[in-house]
Amino acid sequence: MRLTRYFLPVLKEAPAEAEIVSHRLMLRAGMIQQLAAGIYNWLPLGFRVLKKVERIVREEMDRAGAIEILMPTIQPADLWIESGRWDAYGPEMLRVLDRHERRMLYGPTNEENVTDIFRRHVKSYRQLPLNLYQIQWKFRDEIRPRFGVMRGREFLMKDAYSFDLDAEGARRSYDTMFVAYLRTFRRMGLTAIPMQAESGPIGGTMSHEFQILAKTGESHVFYDQAFEEIDFSAAELDIEKLKSLYAATDDKHDPARCPVPPERLRTGRGIEVGHIFYFGTKYSKPMRATVTGPDDREIEVEMGSYGIGVSRLVGAIIEAHHDEHGIVWPESVAPFRVGLVNLRPDDPSCTAMAEELYARLCNAGVEVLYDDRDERAGVKFATMDLIGLPFQITVGPRGVKEGKVELKERKSGARTDLDPEALLARLLA
Amino acid sequence: MRLTRYFLPVLKEAPAEAEIVSHRLMLRAGMIQQLAAGIYNWLPLGFRVLKKVERIVREEMDRAGAIEILMPTIQPADLWIESGRWDAYGPEMLRVLDRHERRMLYGPTNEENVTDIFRRHVKSYRQLPLNLYQIQWKFRDEIRPRFGVMRGREFLMKDAYSFDLDAEGARRSYDTMFVAYLRTFRRMGLTAIPMQAESGPIGGTMSHEFQILAKTGESHVFYDQAFEEIDFSAAELDIEKLKSLYAATDDKHDPARCPVPPERLRTGRGIEVGHIFYFGTKYSKPMRATVTGPDDREIEVEMGSYGIGVSRLVGAIIEAHHDEHGIVWPESVAPFRVGLVNLRPDDPSCTAMAEELYARLCNAGVEVLYDDRDERAGVKFATMDLIGLPFQITVGPRGVKEGKVELKERKSGARTDLDPEALLARLLA
Repeated sequence: MRLTRYFLPVLKEAPAEAEIVSHRLMLRAGMIQQLAAGIYNWLPLGFRVLKKVERIVREEMDRAGAIEILMPTIQPADLWIESGRWDAYGPEMLRVLDRHERRMLYGPTNEENVTDIFRRHVKSYRQLPLNLYQIQWKFRDEIRPRFGVMRGREFLMKDAYSFDLDAEGARRSYDTMFVAYLRTFRRMGLTAIPMQAESGPIGGTMSHEFQILAKTGESHVFYDQAFEEIDFSAAELDIEKLKSLYAATDDKHDPARCPVPPERLRTGRGIEVGHIFYFGTKYSKPMRATVTGPDDREIEVEMGSYGIGVSRLVGAIIEAHHDEHGIVWPESVAPFRVGLVNLRPDDPSCTAMAEELYARLCNAGVEVLYDDRDERAGVKFATMDLIGLPFQITVGPRGVKEGKVELKERKSGARTDLDPEALLARLLA
Repeated sequence: MRLTRYFLPVLKEAPAEAEIVSHRLMLRAGMIQQLAAGIYNWLPLGFRVLKKVERIVREEMDRAGAIEILMPTIQPADLWIESGRWDAYGPEMLRVLDRHERRMLYGPTNEENVTDIFRRHVKSYRQLPLNLYQIQWKFRDEIRPRFGVMRGREFLMKDAYSFDLDAEGARRSYDTMFVAYLRTFRRMGLTAIPMQAESGPIGGTMSHEFQILAKTGESHVFYDQAFEEIDFSAAELDIEKLKSLYAATDDKHDPARCPVPPERLRTGRGIEVGHIFYFGTKYSKPMRATVTGPDDREIEVEMGSYGIGVSRLVGAIIEAHHDEHGIVWPESVAPFRVGLVNLRPDDPSCTAMAEELYARLCNAGVEVLYDDRDERAGVKFATMDLIGLPFQITVGPRGVKEGKVELKERKSGARTDLDPEALLARLLA
């Protein structure tokens, strides 16, 4: 993508409303623009990251055997009246009247709708287990939205729902999601600590939140220092061990009953990026979602639900990956892999070299943002550092004379002068 | 995907509410499920087609130089008050009050929001031309939603917005979209006729609708029979010729002024799948979206907007591609390319052959739906014909004895017995 034909409205100063670093950097890097409190436009650069995060979430859900569907944002009140949540869900639910004065709502979550899909179509235990998921916008009318996309009102969420014949099967489904979540966050360069948590308005008997440690986190968290010794990138994770280790948010943590000796108890702040629930028959019972069992008996299915905050993750990744110059994207979610800076678009030899590199990288399938603007070098470098692409290539007159360009790794800052063939070999390796 | 682990709730009978063939087939093939009037759940098979259609639209927008963003579904009333449409837009606009009693709406279209993005960030003529697009859910509170996803209330739409310095540039942007639309529909196996149309609530001086001819179309259309002689799949289309040919919907057609002699005038019914508008400064003037021109003068930008009904297209494609047995997907939008039927999962030699073909096709990147169910052959064949995958492979005991499987092309019905290597060669060619 040529920057002269792109739309990248970077800002020199972050607007005063931005309290945390990810919000400041997303505004400065031209990733988002606020439309109303807690409601954001995703500008081109932000949109690309959102799609990368979404794709990783999708791939890990598919790998775990969940099946993707898509439920509408606007739903009728009926199903929520049936489950009892129309009255129970507070003012965070955005309620709407349509032109025929029918009561509708903007889905804050979808247990009711997916249970309705299930009960209409699934009749036999032989169709279980089943896990249906979607990646769809939700609305929760937070009283004080803040922190940019980290606590927005309209947000993109992956929500999965498992259906099993019995508690043992439901536990297996829960564990499958538990592991898929650790993999998902790991692929984005995040270490998420699973914590016992309250179930809140979703309900249920077992629940884990996945928290990224960050100073700006909204929850106070407590955890066994053993978590710091776990290799979360290992191919096989010992899920029983992980679930047995103590970690809890402050609403669940009770110092008097904490099993971890004080010298091993760590504390910090966390950003919740995922939340999973096992709630048995909380919805299948009132909504009569049953299957015929092996012995012909009607059995209420055991359910769980599993959320990941897709848009929130974009902010959480920045909280974990930035420095004083800007964002430092992990490669897996970077909006482009390479930034190509032509220092002198007015110099034919620089432009010839930059154009050739651009064409060859594009042809090889590398995502390149090519700064072909007529701007000062300092502006171009600052923009590249701010938007944090993993690799920066600089084409300047001195290097070109010697047949060299510079490759800079954003994360380490390491710079190497390379001839174009060596550069391509390195980036395409 | 193994059918035993998939969620494909096919129905023997279409529900009575379905009036048109695409709606009936989408319900029978387990693609969608109604949640409320004009509001649908996309079940796994339908979701896959929706994503394929979305991808083609995205690729053609990107190719045409448009840049993807994402705007929220819920917007504040302010911008619509500024443009004058808060009062002008009728009861189709879904209006909402948030918890602080602020007036909001569910976007039925996004001229105001995108103009606001533009005016905040674009200051110079040098940043033009610019075309920003998104693929996002919209809500229009139709008084009588019907025809399934063809006239829903919540629907997925691609909306693009062009910004140019002058009318000539705007006309070029309009023509670029005009051609991109013909390419987009062509790739989905559709021939869309561009028709002069009224601008309606979007406003403006020039507008074309793209109509697919179908008996169930909602509009009465009139067109020069010359359209039937055009090769819409040609690499280069003569856009001036296309725009000069007469074609109009009934709200624009005036028999007394029609330039086409009666013997060349064709009439029929059409399904609108796209609509493009050139409306000059209708929004840039009241919202003060200006740039500094080459002579330092402030210039109100010239705008156009360009819609494609992404979810509606799924229905429109079925209207154009079905037979008495079910859907006949064009390969470009088929939910899976191949259906693999194991006639006898209880026969080890059949199962070994089917499993091998499944593994090899999957490894080669072919999307396969593998019917490994313990069901009667008739049920399996009927399901495959109903869901309309381009190729069906049947593995049965007689063929396997001779080392053969059957390949059936859904569209022609042509069947060939092939040994597995020849089959793979043919499908992977």
